[in-house]
Amino acid sequence: MPNTYAVIMAGGSGTRFWPASREMRPKQLLSLGGGEETLLAATVRRLSPLVPPQNVFVVTAKRLAEKTGEALPGVPESQILREPMGRNTAPCIAWAARVIRDKDADALVAVLPSDHFITDEPGFRAVLEKALASAASGVVTTVGIVPTRPETGYGYLELGESMGGGVSRVARFVEKPDRARAERFLAGKKHLWNAGMFFFRVKDMLALVEQHLPDMAKGVEEIVRAGTPEVLEATFPTLQSISIDHGVMEKAEKLAVVAGDFGWDDVGSWLSSWELAEKDANGNALTDGAIAVDAKGNLVRDLGTNKKKVIALVGVSDLVVVETDDALLVIPRERAQDVRAIVDALKAKKRMELL
Amino acid sequence: MPNTYAVIMAGGSGTRFWPASREMRPKQLLSLGGGEETLLAATVRRLSPLVPPQNVFVVTAKRLAEKTGEALPGVPESQILREPMGRNTAPCIAWAARVIRDKDADALVAVLPSDHFITDEPGFRAVLEKALASAASGVVTTVGIVPTRPETGYGYLELGESMGGGVSRVARFVEKPDRARAERFLAGKKHLWNAGMFFFRVKDMLALVEQHLPDMAKGVEEIVRAGTPEVLEATFPTLQSISIDHGVMEKAEKLAVVAGDFGWDDVGSWLSSWELAEKDANGNALTDGAIAVDAKGNLVRDLGTNKKKVIALVGVSDLVVVETDDALLVIPRERAQDVRAIVDALKAKKRMELL
Repeated sequence: MPNTYAVIMAGGSGTRFWPASREMRPKQLLSLGGGEETLLAATVRRLSPLVPPQNVFVVTAKRLAEKTGEALPGVPESQILREPMGRNTAPCIAWAARVIRDKDADALVAVLPSDHFITDEPGFRAVLEKALASAASGVVTTVGIVPTRPETGYGYLELGESMGGGVSRVARFVEKPDRARAERFLAGKKHLWNAGMFFFRVKDMLALVEQHLPDMAKGVEEIVRAGTPEVLEATFPTLQSISIDHGVMEKAEKLAVVAGDFGWDDVGSWLSSWELAEKDANGNALTDGAIAVDAKGNLVRDLGTNKKKVIALVGVSDLVVVETDDALLVIPRERAQDVRAIVDALKAKKRMELL
Repeated sequence: MPNTYAVIMAGGSGTRFWPASREMRPKQLLSLGGGEETLLAATVRRLSPLVPPQNVFVVTAKRLAEKTGEALPGVPESQILREPMGRNTAPCIAWAARVIRDKDADALVAVLPSDHFITDEPGFRAVLEKALASAASGVVTTVGIVPTRPETGYGYLELGESMGGGVSRVARFVEKPDRARAERFLAGKKHLWNAGMFFFRVKDMLALVEQHLPDMAKGVEEIVRAGTPEVLEATFPTLQSISIDHGVMEKAEKLAVVAGDFGWDDVGSWLSSWELAEKDANGNALTDGAIAVDAKGNLVRDLGTNKKKVIALVGVSDLVVVETDDALLVIPRERAQDVRAIVDALKAKKRMELL
């Protein structure tokens, strides 16, 4: 078995967790699952022992590199790759793969998002092992999540023929469906959610990039050969901004998928955060020191520096109440997506320090 | 016309404005009317020019004396009387009257609560002038508020025969009525709310105290003659804890009342505070820097030290959201009275620093 590496994609920003998430503290640096661990740290931790931290590479935005490194003490600083700007997932993965090839030409690589939540970690690792074994045979492999609802917010993977051992061909990629189609997918059991997890031998991925995105392959080659910030800064912005799905995966002739059912959640909003959190008998997910009297189904988070504030709710239901040092949000749980309206209002008021 | 003095009763604590009100920052030291002025400072200010600040005496609790003085820069420090403990209104008024007699035996005195709100200040002063003129004739006089609703939370004064000039006899004091009776009072127009305002010549009040509460008269005499903190500390606790209404007014043979209709409000809860506050087109009374999106009828107050917090409400209605440095309260406006439940919970948890 070749050595196994991970590439964690941690460049995302995101406004859906305002006021907790900010440009300088995006979702992956928050602990949205209830405990104190950030989503990013959990992503690295749960890979062990399949991928130890010293084999983890993280691609993030330059401005976030320091905080990202602090969140991952086991990951060597040299393995935190700093994108001068976001260019979607294809340049990110191509670059990281090319960096890893210099270290280990036979490397087996797992690419994973940094900001998802997984309940069943042993189950996740079992699926990971299957996907890595499939990738080791020379087939780029993905993990698809078994749908639990007719979700219209995700892309889907259609299952093709079985290849044995829980691995199937990917028949095709499907864009976000409408509700009726999502319900057919759920009933038909032939479609999985595309969770953005990819597994490959580094040489297989680089060959695919060479074949389908030759300019990108050339740019990445220049960046890694030069190894200087100047060339990175000059060349990275010239790479095509395209997802790995559109740029490579959908064009690949053979692609495998392993179905995963391990309590996955992409923690899309404060509503998801409430769903994942531990709750009291009244469905309140409270921060330490909060007091709820005749209150039900609320999410309360105190993310202030000293966390000594008493947050008292009386007679309110199904609210999200999030406190930071400089902001307070009060919004009904079911309207959590509308946090964006506040971010837009702050932008309009040029309150950049709050973004 | 004799010199006119005021006695402001500012000893109250109160839990109904938690987390703004605390043992060390009771209601009268808050600005609940919308602006920055405390209720106490407004009480003194609106007496001018009838009673200038240098003629104002304030009776407060010892622990609140310093803050009370700071809130009233125009009032001489020697005129802030420090009760060693709360003993209801009769000892408070008897003591202040006896102190004022030493300064001016012919003094005319207005006794006023420190924590009420008045919209029509010229109207208030006009009533004050009538009441003082009545008191100057030797009749202890009170001001009764013309009811605007069948309130069951206040005591009432029943109007007796007219004495001319807008002054009537008080036929009797009526305890808090039940709803049906309060509705009859409202319809009958013969009853006024007892707002705890009294006007008298200092000699008339001291004669009444001597007559109806002779032990109290004696105790107060000792306190003022000695003029030492030791005698005050030793004697004040021995004074009967009784209201001026029960102890003196209800027993007085002749008592006058002037009806007042000057936008009076006792600011009994956060609901009253919202009612009194300036509101935007959606009925939101917001703090500076608050953002309300699709939100109606909310009261938002940021009483933190730096007041730079952005308080963002999305899609919520009729809430009270009050922020201080160490606490946050979220409660429906109509349940504002239930703030007490939080105070009780904090007491049970021995979180004395929050009370």
